[in-house]
Amino acid sequence: MNTIQSYDNRPIGVFDSGLGGLTAVKELTRIFPNENIIYFGDTGRVPYGTRSEETIIKYVRQDIRFLMSHNVKAVVAACGTASSVALNHLKNEFPVELIGVLEPVCTAALKKTKNHKIGVLGTPGTINSGAYSAGIQKLNSAVTVIEQACPMFVPLVENGYLTHPATYLFAEEYLKPLMEKQVDTVILGCTHYPLLETVITEILGDSVTVINAGYETALHTKQILKEKNMLSSQTECGNHTYYVSDDVAKFSCLGGMFLGKKIKAAVSKIDIDTY
Amino acid sequence: MNTIQSYDNRPIGVFDSGLGGLTAVKELTRIFPNENIIYFGDTGRVPYGTRSEETIIKYVRQDIRFLMSHNVKAVVAACGTASSVALNHLKNEFPVELIGVLEPVCTAALKKTKNHKIGVLGTPGTINSGAYSAGIQKLNSAVTVIEQACPMFVPLVENGYLTHPATYLFAEEYLKPLMEKQVDTVILGCTHYPLLETVITEILGDSVTVINAGYETALHTKQILKEKNMLSSQTECGNHTYYVSDDVAKFSCLGGMFLGKKIKAAVSKIDIDTY
Repeated sequence: MNTIQSYDNRPIGVFDSGLGGLTAVKELTRIFPNENIIYFGDTGRVPYGTRSEETIIKYVRQDIRFLMSHNVKAVVAACGTASSVALNHLKNEFPVELIGVLEPVCTAALKKTKNHKIGVLGTPGTINSGAYSAGIQKLNSAVTVIEQACPMFVPLVENGYLTHPATYLFAEEYLKPLMEKQVDTVILGCTHYPLLETVITEILGDSVTVINAGYETALHTKQILKEKNMLSSQTECGNHTYYVSDDVAKFSCLGGMFLGKKIKAAVSKIDIDTY
Repeated sequence: MNTIQSYDNRPIGVFDSGLGGLTAVKELTRIFPNENIIYFGDTGRVPYGTRSEETIIKYVRQDIRFLMSHNVKAVVAACGTASSVALNHLKNEFPVELIGVLEPVCTAALKKTKNHKIGVLGTPGTINSGAYSAGIQKLNSAVTVIEQACPMFVPLVENGYLTHPATYLFAEEYLKPLMEKQVDTVILGCTHYPLLETVITEILGDSVTVINAGYETALHTKQILKEKNMLSSQTECGNHTYYVSDDVAKFSCLGGMFLGKKIKAAVSKIDIDTY
């Protein structure tokens, strides 16, 4: 029996606390270049990772409401903190596919690990939630998970200190407990962290596999949309539209660092408090 | 002729982007222990210093409105960024004494400098505003001002890295241009920075005078209230009340580091978006 293939040409909504989610947009664009994407970066309230659960949930609810107002077919929380702390609380609140980084990343790490020791790097909010440990151990309880909060990584990245000597100092400090426990797989549980991948892999060495949340989430999103017959039928390159809650110029300027290419599309500022 | 001394027992309102302003509360308490103080720390949206002028003005307007709703006799912007970027735009908007850190700090630095070379350390928002240079040169145009943005100082302090080797690396980098220009006076233009005073003075050496914004602002506040017959007449110790826009527990725990003693008073969470 042939199933009828249907399509959904509405845009995919992607949000992050700031610029980090653009590393996921980069991967989404590579995996399905024909999809339209609406991105919201909450640059007026970044970072999320050092705030309380209650505040993170409030902010994420507003982010999703904003994207929903643009008639998106799915919402990707391209933010480790939002995915770990808030999505579970909000999943029944919105009539839309809500995709976080947690599930795809945990699955990918379990596929890669050989010695069953996985390290997780994340913001304090993410690590305090224990969501990665819980997510991995739900799939395989025999795996040891070592979680490490990296409070300085987001400010280092947001201020462009990607290979500064101080970045190495913090990375060595944060990676030490993972290396002592001899993890063979490390999850970059925050979409800012791929920008520190050079430093992180230099310290960890070649024998450790690094899992990039943006890439795994993009793959997972494609799989979900395909299963639900919600891929776009358009053949030309998709339109990307960017919204932020603070300065447009700074986002356009710094965003290219995360996206891997210059942001050419329009960027608009919105008042996220009103959502 | 004797003037009649009158009093005003309403509280003084103090706000900051987060915890930093508590360094000013510490000085205010020392200078007039009998005054009631209402503090608001915008911990749900900290930091201000890396955001745009428009966003900083919006946030500061809400902060002042919140304090005004508590019938304060004066509002102290115990925040270098708020004082430099927003107060000038808002000073005619509120029927209250609006006191920033800029004026007292510039005056104090001019009194101290002998070689007429003053350095200013501040957040990117503060330094981009050029407010310190303008403020000093309005008082004495013969003074050379060297301004230096220190984007990592607030996250380092907010995460408790007060004497970390990375803190020394950033401090050396940020102080180098000031030392090359042989400044003899350095303004700590952000209320977080007194917590890094040990590191900063160690690098600068004894010959450089460091100006603490919190202390100078507390002195200036006393002078203004005295001139306007608005000091409190109460003789017992004043009541302190704390409000934040994020987690109460984290503020109570970390706040003591800034206040120099444990926070014993009640801390409440408010929704600053609604002001």
